[in-house]
Amino acid sequence: MTDVELTKKIFARDNFIKLIGAEILELTEEKAVVRAAITENSLNANGFAQGGMLYTLADFAFALHANLIHPSTVTQGGRIDYVRAVKPPYVTAEAHEKVRAGHNTVSEVILRDAQDETVCVCTFNGFVKDVDRALLQEKFRE
Amino acid sequence: MTDVELTKKIFARDNFIKLIGAEILELTEEKAVVRAAITENSLNANGFAQGGMLYTLADFAFALHANLIHPSTVTQGGRIDYVRAVKPPYVTAEAHEKVRAGHNTVSEVILRDAQDETVCVCTFNGFVKDVDRALLQEKFRE
Amino acid sequence: MTDVELTKKIFARDNFIKLIGAEILELTEEKAVVRAAITENSLNANGFAQGGMLYTLADFAFALHANLIHPSTVTQGGRIDYVRAVKPPYVTAEAHEKVRAGHNTVSEVILRDAQDETVCVCTFNGFVKDVDRALLQEKFRE
Amino acid sequence: MTDVELTKKIFARDNFIKLIGAEILELTEEKAVVRAAITENSLNANGFAQGGMLYTLADFAFALHANLIHPSTVTQGGRIDYVRAVKPPYVTAEAHEKVRAGHNTVSEVILRDAQDETVCVCTFNGFVKDVDRALLQEKFRE
Repeated sequence: MTDVELTKKIFARDNFIKLIGAEILELTEEKAVVRAAITENSLNANGFAQGGMLYTLADFAFALHANLIHPSTVTQGGRIDYVRAVKPPYVTAEAHEKVRAGHNTVSEVILRDAQDETVCVCTFNGFVKDVDRALLQEKFRE
Repeated sequence: MTDVELTKKIFARDNFIKLIGAEILELTEEKAVVRAAITENSLNANGFAQGGMLYTLADFAFALHANLIHPSTVTQGGRIDYVRAVKPPYVTAEAHEKVRAGHNTVSEVILRDAQDETVCVCTFNGFVKDVDRALLQEKFRE
Repeated sequence: MTDVELTKKIFARDNFIKLIGAEILELTEEKAVVRAAITENSLNANGFAQGGMLYTLADFAFALHANLIHPSTVTQGGRIDYVRAVKPPYVTAEAHEKVRAGHNTVSEVILRDAQDETVCVCTFNGFVKDVDRALLQEKFRE
Repeated sequence: MTDVELTKKIFARDNFIKLIGAEILELTEEKAVVRAAITENSLNANGFAQGGMLYTLADFAFALHANLIHPSTVTQGGRIDYVRAVKPPYVTAEAHEKVRAGHNTVSEVILRDAQDETVCVCTFNGFVKDVDRALLQEKFRE
C-alpha cells in the first residue's frame, strides 16, 4: 500500500465526510484537492451552500494532505473567511502546506465554486504526532 | 409570531443543520444554545466527533443568535480552536455576542461535551444587513 | 516574591512593551487588564490608534495572564477583529481564560477605549510548558 | 505621482511603523515585501523578536498591498500563527492577495527570518472603500 493509498484508506472511515459526500480529486505531496456536490442537503436557510459544509470540506482537504505528509496530524484550529456565495453544482477545496516547524503545521485551503471563483479562504493549524508510517501501514493492512 | 419564533422558522429551513440533527435548547436576546447528538454519522476516522460537525454546530448557534438580535446577519468568518476530544453522547454550543458596531457583530461560541467540559472555543464575525423585521415577518408568515 | 510579582518581573524585561508604554492595571488568577496611552507614536496613517499597537496590547494582556496561571506559556496564535476606531486618550485590554486542556490554553481579550466602548475582540491560544514555579522564582530572584 | 508613490506617501505618515523601523523592499500589483531589523527594542522578555512586533510588520505588508490595489482598504481582522523563533538580524513580511469579492479582500502574509525560514503565517481581511484614486492623488499632492 502506498502512503497515498494508506491515507485514503484511513479517511474512508470518516463518517461525516461520507455524509456530505466529498470525494478526493487529487492527493500528492504538493496538495490535496477534494470536491463536494451542492445537493439539497448542503443548503442553508437561504438556499446557498451552508457555511458548516464549506468549512468541513476545507478541513477535509487539510486533514488529508497533512496526514499524508506528516502521519498523524490532528487539527488544532481553523479559520475560514467567506467572500461570496457558491455557484452550484459543486465546490472544491485545495490544501497547500505553508510551513512545518517542530510539531506544528500550517496550511492554506482555498475553496472554489463550479465557475472557478474563490468563495472561501481558510487557514488550518495542526499538531503533528510523527507516528511511524510502518506502524500505520501495519495497523490498516487487513 | 414572536421574533424568536420567526428566527426558528427561518432556520428550520437549513437542510444541512437537519442533516446533522441539531436542536435548539435556548434562544433569547442573551444567548443561543444548541445541541447535537454524537451519532455514527458524526464520527471522524478515529471515532471521535468530527471537526467539521463541531464547527457547523458552533456556526449554527452564532447564526441563530445573531439573526435574532440583528436581522439579517450573514457569517463573514469563523475561527475554531479544538482543545480536547468530545465525550459522547452529545455536544452543545452556546453563543454570546461580544460587540456590535456599525454593520459588524462579533460573537464567542463555546462548545461543551456531555461532561460539561469545554471542547472548542470559537469566534465568529458577521455582517448585519439590518433588514426590517416587519418585512421578514411578512415574508415568513404563511 | 509572589507569583504575581514574579510574572510582572519577567514581563518588565519585554522591550517592545516598554516601547509602546503599556502598564499593568490588574493581574489576578481571574484576569489581566493592561492599558496604553494613545500617543503620537501609536497613530497610523489616518491618525487613529494603529492596528499593530492594538494587537500588541491584547497579546500582552494574554501573555501576562497565561504566564501567571500557567508558567510558562508561549503564544501560538492570535486573532483580532477590529470593530471601531479607538477614542483617545487610552485603550485597555482585558484577558480571560476560556479553557485549558493538556498543553493548550485559549483566552479571550477585549479591547476598550476611553469611552468604555469595545473596539477589538481577540482570541489567543498558547502552548503551556508547565515550568516549575520554584525554578522560575530561583531564576528571577536576584 | 504613481500609485505606488502615492501609497508609500500615505504610509510614510504611520507613526507606529516608524517606531518599529520597518522599510518597504517591494511594492507592486503582485505583492508587498517589508522588512524590520531585530533591535533591542523589538525583543520580548525572553530575548526573541516580540509577537506584537511581528504581527505589526505583517499587518503593514497587508495594508500597503491592499491599499495599492484597492484604495482605500481598512483592516477588519487578522490571524497570526507563530511557528518558530526568529533568527536575527531581521525579519521580512510578504503579502499576497488571495481574493477580492465585493467590498472584501483576503490576503496571506508570510514572515521569514534572516535565514529565510518561515516564522509566521498570517491571514488578513480588509474592507475596501473603493475611494477614487484621483481624489487621493489630489489630497496627498502637496
